[in-house]
Amino acid sequence: MKRNVLIIGAGGVAQVVAHKCAQHNDLLGDLHIASRTVAKCEAIIASVQAKGAMKVPGVFRAHAVDAMDSAAVAALIRDTGAQIVINVGSAFVNMYVLDACIATGAAYMDTAIHEDPAKICETPPWYGNYEWKKRDACKDAGVTAILGIGFDPGVVNVWARAAEGMLDRIDSIDIIDINAGSHGKYFATNFDPEINFREFTGTVYSWQKGGWQENRMFEVGKTWTLPVVGDQKAYLTGHDEVHSLAARYPQADVRFWMGFGDHYINVFTVLNNLGLLSEKPVRTAEGQEVIPLKVVKAVLPDPASLAPGYTGKTCIADLVKGEKDGKPAEVLIYNVADHKEAYEEVGSQGISYTAGVPPVAAAILVAQGTWDVGTMVNAEELDPKPFINLLNTMGLPSRIRDAAGDRELSF
Amino acid sequence: MKRNVLIIGAGGVAQVVAHKCAQHNDLLGDLHIASRTVAKCEAIIASVQAKGAMKVPGVFRAHAVDAMDSAAVAALIRDTGAQIVINVGSAFVNMYVLDACIATGAAYMDTAIHEDPAKICETPPWYGNYEWKKRDACKDAGVTAILGIGFDPGVVNVWARAAEGMLDRIDSIDIIDINAGSHGKYFATNFDPEINFREFTGTVYSWQKGGWQENRMFEVGKTWTLPVVGDQKAYLTGHDEVHSLAARYPQADVRFWMGFGDHYINVFTVLNNLGLLSEKPVRTAEGQEVIPLKVVKAVLPDPASLAPGYTGKTCIADLVKGEKDGKPAEVLIYNVADHKEAYEEVGSQGISYTAGVPPVAAAILVAQGTWDVGTMVNAEELDPKPFINLLNTMGLPSRIRDAAGDRELSF
Repeated sequence: MKRNVLIIGAGGVAQVVAHKCAQHNDLLGDLHIASRTVAKCEAIIASVQAKGAMKVPGVFRAHAVDAMDSAAVAALIRDTGAQIVINVGSAFVNMYVLDACIATGAAYMDTAIHEDPAKICETPPWYGNYEWKKRDACKDAGVTAILGIGFDPGVVNVWARAAEGMLDRIDSIDIIDINAGSHGKYFATNFDPEINFREFTGTVYSWQKGGWQENRMFEVGKTWTLPVVGDQKAYLTGHDEVHSLAARYPQADVRFWMGFGDHYINVFTVLNNLGLLSEKPVRTAEGQEVIPLKVVKAVLPDPASLAPGYTGKTCIADLVKGEKDGKPAEVLIYNVADHKEAYEEVGSQGISYTAGVPPVAAAILVAQGTWDVGTMVNAEELDPKPFINLLNTMGLPSRIRDAAGDRELSF
Repeated sequence: MKRNVLIIGAGGVAQVVAHKCAQHNDLLGDLHIASRTVAKCEAIIASVQAKGAMKVPGVFRAHAVDAMDSAAVAALIRDTGAQIVINVGSAFVNMYVLDACIATGAAYMDTAIHEDPAKICETPPWYGNYEWKKRDACKDAGVTAILGIGFDPGVVNVWARAAEGMLDRIDSIDIIDINAGSHGKYFATNFDPEINFREFTGTVYSWQKGGWQENRMFEVGKTWTLPVVGDQKAYLTGHDEVHSLAARYPQADVRFWMGFGDHYINVFTVLNNLGLLSEKPVRTAEGQEVIPLKVVKAVLPDPASLAPGYTGKTCIADLVKGEKDGKPAEVLIYNVADHKEAYEEVGSQGISYTAGVPPVAAAILVAQGTWDVGTMVNAEELDPKPFINLLNTMGLPSRIRDAAGDRELSF
């Protein structure tokens, strides 16, 4: 049994995490949120209070911390008595926060892979570059570290594991992420533009025929027919979960597909071809050193600002194909989320909602001991059933479509 | 009779001016070139020497000067004994260089209107905001100041004046600027991106039906059929010459059309809609103040770097319609320039060539006294004949297409 949660980060996903922790503070205990800018944390707590989201009276405090300072994070963990850390800060801070958890014994979870600001798209498997190097340290310290437990990576990994019980053999896992919503702006990214664009400027790695296949972004596209959102064009995209699922399912093809409209692709292509998505500094005629990607980020709408006007739905799915009883079989496990409903509940749009609810479910399972495994894992290494059942009650129901029809998935 | 030329600026147009001055240094005397970065001036002189472009042995020296420091420019004019200043520096320096000419008595010429870095697209007529306020000062000092004597503005103004002798009444002047060449890059501007984009982000002013008409860029497009380059789509664009020609021909419609391919328009539209062409600073997440347009400039190819691979031709034309002997009549006066030929002669591409040759022709006419009028003028106020005849011998022949056919225009 672990109690008391420290949330690292104060963006759109942190907002969701805060609201969902508050809704379950009877199980989670004291709540704390910390980021570089304490005012952002205070604004999130104010929005939690405005919604009356705290299930029972309790603590929710804001703190300022530099998450790249491990010792400062460790001190904050000790000061707050947090036994669970939900890291939804920038992808650049993961390893510093993880080190602080190893130092203090707190459970760790995040929703995206660690990145070095200066490197785009490192050698696969990506988890091998940073996180997995700390596996032994976690095990030795008995620290529970759940890597990538947002929606994708996260729920989609858990679904793949759940499909193990439905098929005798898994031949392919296609993860399809479609945002069929509309924010009404000329152009915007749904989360931090810097992280968003970095996903698409490097090599697209997929695991096919037992090896890493390399493509360029938008090189391989395919129209998928999905529940609710219908026909949607999606493109083979590099993504965290491919890099852990390939280790568990080496015999299967593991691919990630992200949906993009022609307009998004056009804007991305222009910016990328001009060099404006580069993380490497350029020098202006006046001699100022500037990182172009940071300027693009500065001119784009703040993703959090999109939430009030966002309409439409997201659909994220695992299409798992293989064999059952000697015959070809497939299951589609999926979730549909609604931007407007998400905003009404927690003040964030649907993309942040789908990323922010799962780590809170994971935190509850750690608090209850069910997932408190005392070592480092990716989501597919844990028992999927309690997690899927819990998410069904938290606003992110899993559904399944297979030969037997379309229905909620529960165990 | 004036002698000795000081060139201000060291970009692609300055390169052409330097080569052409060298080819006529028997008439022009000592040559000097000055910019903020003396190394750029030295490189231009080295290229002149490498081509053996000096007609007779003579002086060609490089100097460092901050062209926004009028006193420093005046001191340089006195030190060098220059009686003619060809200003092909940034559009931001015009008034400072003009003041230095007024202070020293040197003749002044430029190729583009003065701009305040902080303002886009001021009230028409644009010349009224800065240059024309110095008319009396030029007249009082007996200073010859020829405004906008590149190609457009410049030659196109002179052509309009020449058309006065061909028609009894002028009803419309359409200036059409087509670059049918190819630089082979994903995207590049043919001159300073900062100045280039500033032309298109403001209101498009044209003079029609006796008043200023306002449009947005790319709002009004038309396909023109031109000699050599054929059918070309061009768009109503704001441009300097409209603002002086409207004063001389208030009864006529005066419009400027610039040719753009769909790809250029797409890239421009994306950058403009995102706010990346703004001259107003934005603040990055890290707190750095950056002007987006300057970052776009930094990532784009240096226009000078396009020259070696540039192929194809430009066509710039005046289509002047009106009445002759009681019947409707029209003349098309035009020039076709070739990028590769320009590069072979002076090391610059065709756009720089067409802009850089005319001010040297004007300087020769000032040196000879023909155009040394001792006051401030726009190009259409001067006798067009000697200028057109001289340009015919300097690599920029004027041609005319009218009811009598297509032939070289000379007087």
